[in-house]
Amino acid sequence: MNTFTQLESAVRSYGRSYPVVFDRAADSCLFDVDGRRYLDFLAGAGALNYGHNNSAITEALLDYIKRGGIAHGLDMQTQAKEEFLNALEQFILAPRDLRYRVQFTGPTGTNAVEAAFKIARKVTGRQNILAFTNGFHGVTLGALSATGNRHHRGGAGTALNAITRMPYDGYLGNTIDTSDLLIKMIEDPSSGIDLPAAVIVETVQGEGGLNVASTQWLQKIEQFCRQTGALLIIDDIQAGCGRTGEFFSFESMGIEPDIITLSKSLSGYGLPMAIVLISPQHDCWKPGEHNGTFRGNNHAFVTAAAALQKYWHNDDFAQEIRRKESLLTNRLDQLVTLFPHHITGQKGRGMMRGLAFRDGQMATDTSRRSFANGLVIETSGSHGEVVKCLCPLTISDEELNEGLDILASSISDVAISYAA
Amino acid sequence: MNTFTQLESAVRSYGRSYPVVFDRAADSCLFDVDGRRYLDFLAGAGALNYGHNNSAITEALLDYIKRGGIAHGLDMQTQAKEEFLNALEQFILAPRDLRYRVQFTGPTGTNAVEAAFKIARKVTGRQNILAFTNGFHGVTLGALSATGNRHHRGGAGTALNAITRMPYDGYLGNTIDTSDLLIKMIEDPSSGIDLPAAVIVETVQGEGGLNVASTQWLQKIEQFCRQTGALLIIDDIQAGCGRTGEFFSFESMGIEPDIITLSKSLSGYGLPMAIVLISPQHDCWKPGEHNGTFRGNNHAFVTAAAALQKYWHNDDFAQEIRRKESLLTNRLDQLVTLFPHHITGQKGRGMMRGLAFRDGQMATDTSRRSFANGLVIETSGSHGEVVKCLCPLTISDEELNEGLDILASSISDVAISYAA
Amino acid sequence: MNTFTQLESAVRSYGRSYPVVFDRAADSCLFDVDGRRYLDFLAGAGALNYGHNNSAITEALLDYIKRGGIAHGLDMQTQAKEEFLNALEQFILAPRDLRYRVQFTGPTGTNAVEAAFKIARKVTGRQNILAFTNGFHGVTLGALSATGNRHHRGGAGTALNAITRMPYDGYLGNTIDTSDLLIKMIEDPSSGIDLPAAVIVETVQGEGGLNVASTQWLQKIEQFCRQTGALLIIDDIQAGCGRTGEFFSFESMGIEPDIITLSKSLSGYGLPMAIVLISPQHDCWKPGEHNGTFRGNNHAFVTAAAALQKYWHNDDFAQEIRRKESLLTNRLDQLVTLFPHHITGQKGRGMMRGLAFRDGQMATDTSRRSFANGLVIETSGSHGEVVKCLCPLTISDEELNEGLDILASSISDVAISYAA
Amino acid sequence: MNTFTQLESAVRSYGRSYPVVFDRAADSCLFDVDGRRYLDFLAGAGALNYGHNNSAITEALLDYIKRGGIAHGLDMQTQAKEEFLNALEQFILAPRDLRYRVQFTGPTGTNAVEAAFKIARKVTGRQNILAFTNGFHGVTLGALSATGNRHHRGGAGTALNAITRMPYDGYLGNTIDTSDLLIKMIEDPSSGIDLPAAVIVETVQGEGGLNVASTQWLQKIEQFCRQTGALLIIDDIQAGCGRTGEFFSFESMGIEPDIITLSKSLSGYGLPMAIVLISPQHDCWKPGEHNGTFRGNNHAFVTAAAALQKYWHNDDFAQEIRRKESLLTNRLDQLVTLFPHHITGQKGRGMMRGLAFRDGQMATDTSRRSFANGLVIETSGSHGEVVKCLCPLTISDEELNEGLDILASSISDVAISYAA
Repeated sequence: MNTFTQLESAVRSYGRSYPVVFDRAADSCLFDVDGRRYLDFLAGAGALNYGHNNSAITEALLDYIKRGGIAHGLDMQTQAKEEFLNALEQFILAPRDLRYRVQFTGPTGTNAVEAAFKIARKVTGRQNILAFTNGFHGVTLGALSATGNRHHRGGAGTALNAITRMPYDGYLGNTIDTSDLLIKMIEDPSSGIDLPAAVIVETVQGEGGLNVASTQWLQKIEQFCRQTGALLIIDDIQAGCGRTGEFFSFESMGIEPDIITLSKSLSGYGLPMAIVLISPQHDCWKPGEHNGTFRGNNHAFVTAAAALQKYWHNDDFAQEIRRKESLLTNRLDQLVTLFPHHITGQKGRGMMRGLAFRDGQMATDTSRRSFANGLVIETSGSHGEVVKCLCPLTISDEELNEGLDILASSISDVAISYAA
Repeated sequence: MNTFTQLESAVRSYGRSYPVVFDRAADSCLFDVDGRRYLDFLAGAGALNYGHNNSAITEALLDYIKRGGIAHGLDMQTQAKEEFLNALEQFILAPRDLRYRVQFTGPTGTNAVEAAFKIARKVTGRQNILAFTNGFHGVTLGALSATGNRHHRGGAGTALNAITRMPYDGYLGNTIDTSDLLIKMIEDPSSGIDLPAAVIVETVQGEGGLNVASTQWLQKIEQFCRQTGALLIIDDIQAGCGRTGEFFSFESMGIEPDIITLSKSLSGYGLPMAIVLISPQHDCWKPGEHNGTFRGNNHAFVTAAAALQKYWHNDDFAQEIRRKESLLTNRLDQLVTLFPHHITGQKGRGMMRGLAFRDGQMATDTSRRSFANGLVIETSGSHGEVVKCLCPLTISDEELNEGLDILASSISDVAISYAA
Repeated sequence: MNTFTQLESAVRSYGRSYPVVFDRAADSCLFDVDGRRYLDFLAGAGALNYGHNNSAITEALLDYIKRGGIAHGLDMQTQAKEEFLNALEQFILAPRDLRYRVQFTGPTGTNAVEAAFKIARKVTGRQNILAFTNGFHGVTLGALSATGNRHHRGGAGTALNAITRMPYDGYLGNTIDTSDLLIKMIEDPSSGIDLPAAVIVETVQGEGGLNVASTQWLQKIEQFCRQTGALLIIDDIQAGCGRTGEFFSFESMGIEPDIITLSKSLSGYGLPMAIVLISPQHDCWKPGEHNGTFRGNNHAFVTAAAALQKYWHNDDFAQEIRRKESLLTNRLDQLVTLFPHHITGQKGRGMMRGLAFRDGQMATDTSRRSFANGLVIETSGSHGEVVKCLCPLTISDEELNEGLDILASSISDVAISYAA
Repeated sequence: MNTFTQLESAVRSYGRSYPVVFDRAADSCLFDVDGRRYLDFLAGAGALNYGHNNSAITEALLDYIKRGGIAHGLDMQTQAKEEFLNALEQFILAPRDLRYRVQFTGPTGTNAVEAAFKIARKVTGRQNILAFTNGFHGVTLGALSATGNRHHRGGAGTALNAITRMPYDGYLGNTIDTSDLLIKMIEDPSSGIDLPAAVIVETVQGEGGLNVASTQWLQKIEQFCRQTGALLIIDDIQAGCGRTGEFFSFESMGIEPDIITLSKSLSGYGLPMAIVLISPQHDCWKPGEHNGTFRGNNHAFVTAAAALQKYWHNDDFAQEIRRKESLLTNRLDQLVTLFPHHITGQKGRGMMRGLAFRDGQMATDTSRRSFANGLVIETSGSHGEVVKCLCPLTISDEELNEGLDILASSISDVAISYAA
């Protein structure tokens, strides 16, 4: 560990929670340099929906490298990019009757969000963007303005502008529909809220504590966008790529975003990749107006195409996710029932679920204890009070149960130690 | 090409200049899907200093993938990261008697710049950052504020704040030392320039037209930083990693930046990777304050470590670059002599050089003609008037000469067509 | 009128509503150049609480001018300023057991608000200021950021930053305490609302539609400020100087603002004057840090001192206001009862009251009709739906009734014309 | 003095330099409460070009008040405003063949500047405004962004945005034409300077140290504005109203600003008043878009009209100013000759002149010593190094000489004390 404490910046974070040096990984497991195995319920913070080093995808990548395929292609046309675009069209867009243009941004989610904001501001000529409480959209200056977390915002060192914050669905309790507040404030010409270029929203807030927006609320947000000329941006970076049981998290909701941001599990292998899907009528970019050196991470295009081909050529994978979801929710329900003094309920949607603790410290202790017991798992939420089960979607039932067993016994251990 | 025109956003740019679909690449060559070979004097806009699919690095990457090494590691400790850190310390920092902490940011240059600005603002409690005319630092909102290019700035759709622009070395001609202007305006308490958190500067402006800052000027900028409490940020994203003849572009200048940003050729293979080097006394990050999903692109750590080990374990590679530099400059000088009506001179430093045309259109035409003749080469500068030779540093003398031959004949073709 | 339409900017506004040329004025009456008399229920938008050309104050001003008293004194000590300061201390601050330092800003309300924001930001080192829906605080850039009106905001032509907008008391209906929302969002470290330097609030929103904040709500806001280290700024520019029945609009509420802005009726004569009252512990200005040429409008100091001496040396005037308030509210209640289809109720507090129409157009028509009938009266509110009775506090009962008679018959006229 | 130290904010400034309580004033003299007489070479920081309590103007004001003329008229049409508009048209605009619309803003210079920025941004749809080193335009947030003084800027507590700072004429010495730098940076599409909505410039920088822009430089700035579509704003708040020898400071320069800001001596009596003159084609305000309670300070309209009628109905006054100017410059030249070790030269134009000391402290000491000797006089410039003679334009030759005698002996006193 000396190398890290001496040479790496104090900004390192996850490594502090898991004070080992990891080496290899396979599917739902990580192995440290001493060969110890850990189940992975963090899954690259949602970047590893298909697990570590998924064999089918590995094969495609190795073949590509061996045959001398281009690794770095700026934004030039490459055979690998073409295959990815065709796979996206064939397996994802066309079957869902969606029409979008694909912008390859710098290969990070925050870069996709920055591009989305730019295009919305260009299209509308407005500057204000509506974002929600507990939203997380990245930490570069434009995206950070929309991110709710004060810890991250405090890093900016300068004002974060041109964003209006609104309460997310359910933020004010069940009796208040927060979309009404938003609509009221925009319709009121004296409210002080400037007409927005866009609304950016996650259907499930991954970092914000697995808060779930209802279909009805999202439909009202979409309707609001249509009426005010704002663009609807769905940030599907964490909730997309199958995490909620379908490729896009909003598929079954009857809404059609103007812009979608995708990243994290898009490459299927944990390789950096991000795209923005833009409704053709809003694709008003000038050539190169938003650019970046690593827009053409062709290794990621190869693995992304392989993932789409393998998992999304028919509905089997989606059904499998939903089957596991019911396994997961049943187990989580049991834990809620078992620890009523400590756990207030389960949160989330699809395979993006977790347990809400009354106390953020207990959630942290549970996470730490789980790691000692061989499970990598993290917390989220305003006070880190939600233990988040973000296992690979490809996890076997055995490993899912094994992980949940560790989680259960870790909660129990912590609860007992608190009682002592 | 249909796939691209129908599915990709209008923002695509390089692909318009090179209307083919590339497939494979090796060292200094690209091959399109029809097997046609192109010499690459663009080299991933500086991301491919060691060429495409460098065989030693390929080997390391294949080994790593085959043995199940972790691909995606967030910011956890991994064996691959440890090897990279040790290689950086052993081959780069220690021999140069430099002491920095390494921050792994999101794997893009713009993300590193955003992190650098944050840390400078946190350290100083000031907001203003001095940037220079024709500087390019990225297109996310914070970095874009510092970028000079109006085409890119126009994409923001909102105000770009907290930056003061100063003329770069030589911007006002040879008789005016622009560092004096900067110093005068900061020393004058009524100039309207707020005390800066940092000065960000490229030693050679890659996108800005291969403008070169002199050692003396940079030393005055550093001295200015020391006197005013501003941090000196060297953006070595394009000029670093050997491009100018040494690992850091400022090595021989007797200056010691507080912060260095590195990306592009850092991974050695074109894989997305970026780091910020921070003087230990300024490493005031709180854990996770700047984060991102792809900070742990372990494939890139593997290739980066391999590149450092192979090329920087002794001084041979640096000497080789300087040898090629003299070959390159001689040839460019000949072209300057040959086309005095069209070319005003050569610009740049090390292997980061090009020809300044009187007319941006002729530079563009030369680039297009070169491509038709089998050479990928681009322009830079305010009016795209500089044809930029950014070939791999590992290029063979034969290929370097071959590329320059194509360039020469392309200029000649264009000049003749103009005369007609 | 030709002079005005040809030489004055299109920005002129009130003059369009009252298309005559006014000449003289006395107490509650205006006279146009043709000698026609108008009752004034606009009273300089609240700047003429003591009526036009109040005789006692006129006398003091004439004496001062005749004896060669200084007119313009920058921020130098003058005998006139001393008298004003002593009168403020003797008649206002000391009896109410308040301790504030007086900052003489440029003589406009917006300038006082700008100074208040600066001092709050300096004291706390924070940038964010919480302002409320429908608030009006001025139109210079800093104050405009806090102003809610989209018509005015649109004039900025650049982003209005560093303000968070919150719903005012009652904005979301009677069942929701909006201070809870504010508290929740600040206490939530992931809400996206940055810790505020200050909260700025009007106890009654003059331009926003005579919305009234309850004592309990304001106390919660104050408590919130104490807990979060934010400063409480009461903008008493329109509601202060007796308008609500006491000198400060918040006197009887058990709250003690850190900063109070006063202007409009402060000079007692409609002369430009504005001050900021600052709790001594927050008076951290450096000499001249906020300045302005007209901070020493000594004519206004003379009239202000005369007004304080005459009207606030005992409680008689306050009692008189409250007596008239009951006269006014009774008459307005009658109108509400009389026109249930058109008027939803009366709004406001003290002598800052009006009628809320269902339809902004009818409110406008009523105002226009009233003018035709000899009454100057204006609308306010998000859609101009509130007809605002802002008569001088010194108005005689006869004139108050006369004005309300004109208002009543004008409403009737408009209602009949609508029914036709 | 107790009243002031105990009750007034620490922000008070001039009063610290002149630790007496002033009472009366007449023409070029101030009198303190003990009857002591002071010659006034500060003249309300340029607000008293016609002296204190000018008798002709006093008469007009007294008449107006006595006849019950409206004091406060919002932006309604009044007889007093009409007279002012007609006088402005008749005596100022028409004879100079100028066509402008008059916007009555809040009655402070900073408010006029804020309005000017808004209109420029509205007209052009751009946000950036070019301002110059050492410029002073006010301290509300919008104007403060354009003000150069760090002392004032530091009061903002938040970022000052949307301004680009350029070196004023002569800032870089005699050999560099700074307008060329400005033009170069705007013409360079990669300079990082965004196209401006406007350029704001003072022809003589009053607070910045009496720096004078040459006719040629201003013509180039105007030409630059025409070519780039930027509006030219001349801030004539201090240099206008006759201070430089003609009503507008730029009259004889062959330039025609799009927007002119006037305040300070406009009312002729030190009463708060400010206007923006807007070229008719740019007068795109919506009614009331920029507003304010004290736009209709009718007392000031009366005194302003009286001043225009008395001093500008023919060329006599302008000739008289120029005669005094030569008296003043001769005397100042003598002082420069007399104290070559301490004074580097005289600065300024017209009756806006002063002496530049090598050392700001000596300038301050000279100002303090002068006050002890009965002369109110202040310093300006980056380091307060310029002692500024800003006496009333109506001063008698005797008083002008008397003041300069005091100044001369005070310099001598200070020089001797330094030598001791």
